[in-house]
Amino acid sequence: MAQKPSIPKGTRDFSPMEMSRRNYIFDTIRSVFLKYGYSQIETPAMENLSTLLGKYGDEGDKLLFKILNSGDAFSKLSPEDLHGNSASLKVCEKGLRYDLTVPFARYVSQHQNEISFPFKRFQIQPVWRADRPQKGRYREFCQCDVDVIGSGSLLNELELLLMAGEVFEKLGIRAAVKINNRKILSGLAEISGHPDKITDMTVAIDKIDKIGLAAVREELFSKGFDEVSVSRIEPVLTMSGDNEEKIAILRNVLSASQIGNTGLDELEKLLSYVSSAKPAVRVDVDFSLARGLNYYTGAIFEVKALDFEIGSICGGGRYDDLAGIFGMSGVSGVGISFGADRIYDVLSGLDKFPPDIAASPLVMFANMGDNEVSYVLPVVSSLRKSGIKVELYPDKAKLKKQFEYASKKGIRYLAIAGENEISEGTASVKDIISGEQKNIKIDELLSFLIEKN
Amino acid sequence: MAQKPSIPKGTRDFSPMEMSRRNYIFDTIRSVFLKYGYSQIETPAMENLSTLLGKYGDEGDKLLFKILNSGDAFSKLSPEDLHGNSASLKVCEKGLRYDLTVPFARYVSQHQNEISFPFKRFQIQPVWRADRPQKGRYREFCQCDVDVIGSGSLLNELELLLMAGEVFEKLGIRAAVKINNRKILSGLAEISGHPDKITDMTVAIDKIDKIGLAAVREELFSKGFDEVSVSRIEPVLTMSGDNEEKIAILRNVLSASQIGNTGLDELEKLLSYVSSAKPAVRVDVDFSLARGLNYYTGAIFEVKALDFEIGSICGGGRYDDLAGIFGMSGVSGVGISFGADRIYDVLSGLDKFPPDIAASPLVMFANMGDNEVSYVLPVVSSLRKSGIKVELYPDKAKLKKQFEYASKKGIRYLAIAGENEISEGTASVKDIISGEQKNIKIDELLSFLIEKN
Repeated sequence: MAQKPSIPKGTRDFSPMEMSRRNYIFDTIRSVFLKYGYSQIETPAMENLSTLLGKYGDEGDKLLFKILNSGDAFSKLSPEDLHGNSASLKVCEKGLRYDLTVPFARYVSQHQNEISFPFKRFQIQPVWRADRPQKGRYREFCQCDVDVIGSGSLLNELELLLMAGEVFEKLGIRAAVKINNRKILSGLAEISGHPDKITDMTVAIDKIDKIGLAAVREELFSKGFDEVSVSRIEPVLTMSGDNEEKIAILRNVLSASQIGNTGLDELEKLLSYVSSAKPAVRVDVDFSLARGLNYYTGAIFEVKALDFEIGSICGGGRYDDLAGIFGMSGVSGVGISFGADRIYDVLSGLDKFPPDIAASPLVMFANMGDNEVSYVLPVVSSLRKSGIKVELYPDKAKLKKQFEYASKKGIRYLAIAGENEISEGTASVKDIISGEQKNIKIDELLSFLIEKN
Repeated sequence: MAQKPSIPKGTRDFSPMEMSRRNYIFDTIRSVFLKYGYSQIETPAMENLSTLLGKYGDEGDKLLFKILNSGDAFSKLSPEDLHGNSASLKVCEKGLRYDLTVPFARYVSQHQNEISFPFKRFQIQPVWRADRPQKGRYREFCQCDVDVIGSGSLLNELELLLMAGEVFEKLGIRAAVKINNRKILSGLAEISGHPDKITDMTVAIDKIDKIGLAAVREELFSKGFDEVSVSRIEPVLTMSGDNEEKIAILRNVLSASQIGNTGLDELEKLLSYVSSAKPAVRVDVDFSLARGLNYYTGAIFEVKALDFEIGSICGGGRYDDLAGIFGMSGVSGVGISFGADRIYDVLSGLDKFPPDIAASPLVMFANMGDNEVSYVLPVVSSLRKSGIKVELYPDKAKLKKQFEYASKKGIRYLAIAGENEISEGTASVKDIISGEQKNIKIDELLSFLIEKN
């Protein structure tokens, strides 16, 4: 019996139109990365589970897709194994890539002797997560990461902002970057009297836009902060003004914190670079930005589209010692990641995809039968030699059907050569959009099409 | 303890240089596909095992990478399951894509109402096979497939030959295509008196180049062909001459076989198209070509490089009813697949990769310290605005180190602005290849670099 075809939940097929649009996004991002001197790498879809496990927290470990060992995987299992949590590790040694960061850290450590540092790399590949599928969240999705590793200079942070600006400018998306610095958050935790509660604190203040001041205060109280502690953090939650004013307020709040002031120094220096190099994107200081990720140690970035309501379309920050887990300590890195699916949704929602994105052929020759095909074949070949995108309809079918095929594919001209045209040495060329039709000598066809190309 | 990093056997990391070379191959192939009006699709890395199992023979089923169900996969297993072959199917519902053909058939069937036929698609994605890794054989490798589905016209076969010719011409690889037709092989089996033994017969004659006539005869005898049968097949094994002469001999051999003559008719028609459209590749009839694959029903193709000893670099053929397994019968298709890894090896072996493939930045500004960076930043930004690929070294390091970094990355010019240059409003620009160095006014830098670009 024939199978009813389907694909695993949370995964997607990409149609030709979707592919054109996705390639447009990836090609734009890639061209900017290359322009700034970043080099592309790729890593395998599968990594050893020993590389992946323990890097994403307990929750992340559960979301790894594990691959069954080939051969007789189950002979190693005893019946007791079926009741514990160890069975999967006895039958699986490999898992699918969960992000691009851990494979990159593994790559840098493994190939450190071939790499000249600072290493500016980008990577555009799918990742897989056994998340519960829901609207806008997939089990297979593409990440676009760009990182510099082996340099602590804030010029790298600047470069990432410049690239984000250029990518979104090229795509026609108005965007703004929020920036913060993890050291400032550490300073805040310090002056609140709870340096150990930095995670609880940042999780709470990260929610200020969503749940408001009162609820953030409540959450902080529930995590063991008292009224005095909260009052020291509160200026961050209520401040307004431009970047300079915000920094001035924080200088005051953090005056007693050395790490906090280091964070403010870094932020000010980065902003001075920004005013000198002028990225094509607004840069706003936001001390409530935390991005939940524990491994950031310096700058934190997040980009949002200004004209479309959706989560962040790009984000990242500086991390120290990521490669340290693979035996290479003290290497600082900074990077950002572009969210291709969300960028796609923004471009769709704002109708900003260029109209000619499908790169359809310029002309299709109709198939009027064997004799006509012999007349047309050398013409088609010579047009292609000149670089024109040409189709020849493969079957002798009703002209209406051929016309519809060309029209659906976004082909601009339909060229028809029947008996009359052959005897005249011409082709009848119909503009599919305007309906206009004219006879053109075969040897003038190329210049006609080049002009219209 | 730090882990010693490694990747699963049979998989690969791709370094920046390898990526530049691979992208060059893929971009070349993709540009040709697009020029002929083929549209790109992508399918998920994971398919349901029900889609994959039974499509590649028993051996193929064993080579599928299966993905462990998420959640508590093992609670469904009883101790008895551990002894049979069924355990993996109880804990795995998904597998990794084994080729692009079955996912394409699934795609066509699943999306038939959105597709306008004939559907000309290409797909460039990795596939995974649990093969024993060995030199040149990987467990993860990229396939580049191009197919037309929904048209029986031989113009499609022609188009594939034209595209293969154009791809290898663009890559600078001299190549030749062997063509055959499965119907001719069916005719041969028929006149040998063993139409049911077509597979044994084609497997044997496919080996003629490798093992020679005597051994092929032996193999045929061992499969139950007698002397009379073998004598009828033998002209195919010993023939020489050009395409026309070969076809004439086969017309004679196959005179009693209707299907054999249909195959020869198809071959002749395709060759007449070839002489009219002139692909950029030699086309040789080879009646021993079988390509082992059971699903070909018409034309069979194989491309080999002429100047480098390696297996086929491209191949394919016509298949009928592939989508039939997914409930869509009677749809004929034809396609070819490019072997990216082998093409890479040919280009490496012949030293045919273009020298400027890495697309390195044209210029790098040295980092001479904070003051100098302020002078240089607006210059770097304005050069980038003009489309020049520019790096600014992020750290204040010894000039020698910065020079070496630029040199290793294939950057052509190193621009240095120290105190003197700043006071003069210039930069000192060193040609890294020639060693030549000169002072250039900042506002003349752009025109200097554009000229050198």
